[in-house]
Amino acid sequence: MPRYKLTLEYDGGPFVGWQRQDNGLSVQGALEQAALRYTGETVTAHAAGRTDAGVHAYGQVAHIDLRRADPARKVREALNAHLRPHPVAVVEAEEVDDTFHARFSAVERSYVYRILNRRAPAVLEAGKVWWVPQPLDADAMHAAGQELVGQHDFTSFRAAECQANSPVKSIDELVVSRQGEHVEMFVRARSFLHHQVRNIIGTLSLVGLGRWSRDDVRRALEARNRAKAGPTAPPTGLYFRAVRYEDAATLTTPPAAESAP
Amino acid sequence: MPRYKLTLEYDGGPFVGWQRQDNGLSVQGALEQAALRYTGETVTAHAAGRTDAGVHAYGQVAHIDLRRADPARKVREALNAHLRPHPVAVVEAEEVDDTFHARFSAVERSYVYRILNRRAPAVLEAGKVWWVPQPLDADAMHAAGQELVGQHDFTSFRAAECQANSPVKSIDELVVSRQGEHVEMFVRARSFLHHQVRNIIGTLSLVGLGRWSRDDVRRALEARNRAKAGPTAPPTGLYFRAVRYEDAATLTTPPAAESAP
Repeated sequence: MPRYKLTLEYDGGPFVGWQRQDNGLSVQGALEQAALRYTGETVTAHAAGRTDAGVHAYGQVAHIDLRRADPARKVREALNAHLRPHPVAVVEAEEVDDTFHARFSAVERSYVYRILNRRAPAVLEAGKVWWVPQPLDADAMHAAGQELVGQHDFTSFRAAECQANSPVKSIDELVVSRQGEHVEMFVRARSFLHHQVRNIIGTLSLVGLGRWSRDDVRRALEARNRAKAGPTAPPTGLYFRAVRYEDAATLTTPPAAESAP
Repeated sequence: MPRYKLTLEYDGGPFVGWQRQDNGLSVQGALEQAALRYTGETVTAHAAGRTDAGVHAYGQVAHIDLRRADPARKVREALNAHLRPHPVAVVEAEEVDDTFHARFSAVERSYVYRILNRRAPAVLEAGKVWWVPQPLDADAMHAAGQELVGQHDFTSFRAAECQANSPVKSIDELVVSRQGEHVEMFVRARSFLHHQVRNIIGTLSLVGLGRWSRDDVRRALEARNRAKAGPTAPPTGLYFRAVRYEDAATLTTPPAAESAP
């Protein structure tokens, strides 16, 4: 039974999040429904990261098993046809070995958080950024963010409902930079705690506004107390960017030659 | 009576276009309504370019006259507060001499047209691009586009309902380039005919798909017959980018010092 690795882009706005829930449409549900319409099979989709309601993705990775053995290219086209009108698309599909697991084979995940930092509210990017009208010092945010790089107990940056066994995580890279009216944070780690990225950017925004120092961020981390760190930033600015897998696990067959870009 | 030059960003999606109409909400109407709520004055807003339904802007310029003489910064903030929830915002406001006219003082306008060129449909950019799933040769589009640079009779690229006195226009620059999955066209001219940009990109897309040659574009131009050029591209990919004014006309007072970015 062929396994397909699917790279997904979605607008998190109308979804209750990745995970199937009773209270609304999930990305997982939309994908599984598209697979059902396409093949008549009831499948379970597994994702690298279970994004929250409102969180976007341009490089989420999921896998599904299909009894019907179609070329990966056809799977991508058919799923995209059946995913409409939901704002989720299969950007890439490839057939992988059944030892590949979108979640458990992942060795690194990365997120981008986008802030629109100007007086005028978001218009063309409404729902796709966090609008912060007060000026932010991106360099100060970057410097303070370096306190969080490395292995730490991230209890102060963890949602109460987080289900991870341990609050200890290792952030491999965290970069905050300004691009014109935008302040962007890029962050990568093997894995993240629930709300970790949004709590980090919410805390660093206090630094950007000049209310907190780099030392305040270090003290918040050391406190191991969620109440000591900054607010949870809104989901609208958060993008699941990419997943890295051990090369051996991802590919059993070379990607099909394609005429399309 | 102070005159204010307003730089506007808007998502054209929900609007019937710039111009006030009976059949729905226009950008002009939204702006005039916001001014009325703010000052109690009935004003007329004049824009550099009357964009069609669905066409976006990040640098449209309009002007309004207000009896109430508030600092430009306050005018911007108040209009933005009253423009909600419509997807239009005043990005910049400045007080200008009453010889300034957003439309008649403009000496150059520029547009950007964005194509998403990949197999998967637009998701995060839905309604903000033209999705072309077949591969486009951006270099060939750029080369063919050079046939249109300079002064020409653009009858072949003009909408039937165009109200301009003459079909002769002068395109000063036209650049088509690929940025990853996107193909973008930048074009600037003193002024444009109705649908001219969308008819140009629709025609160049035939070149990008390999169906037309550069010579075909030249022949379409020379035919002076709308039926001889390519299709009108959808409004979703079109952005009114910027307007240039003679320096003397724009500023009577230096821009106010601002702490915001």
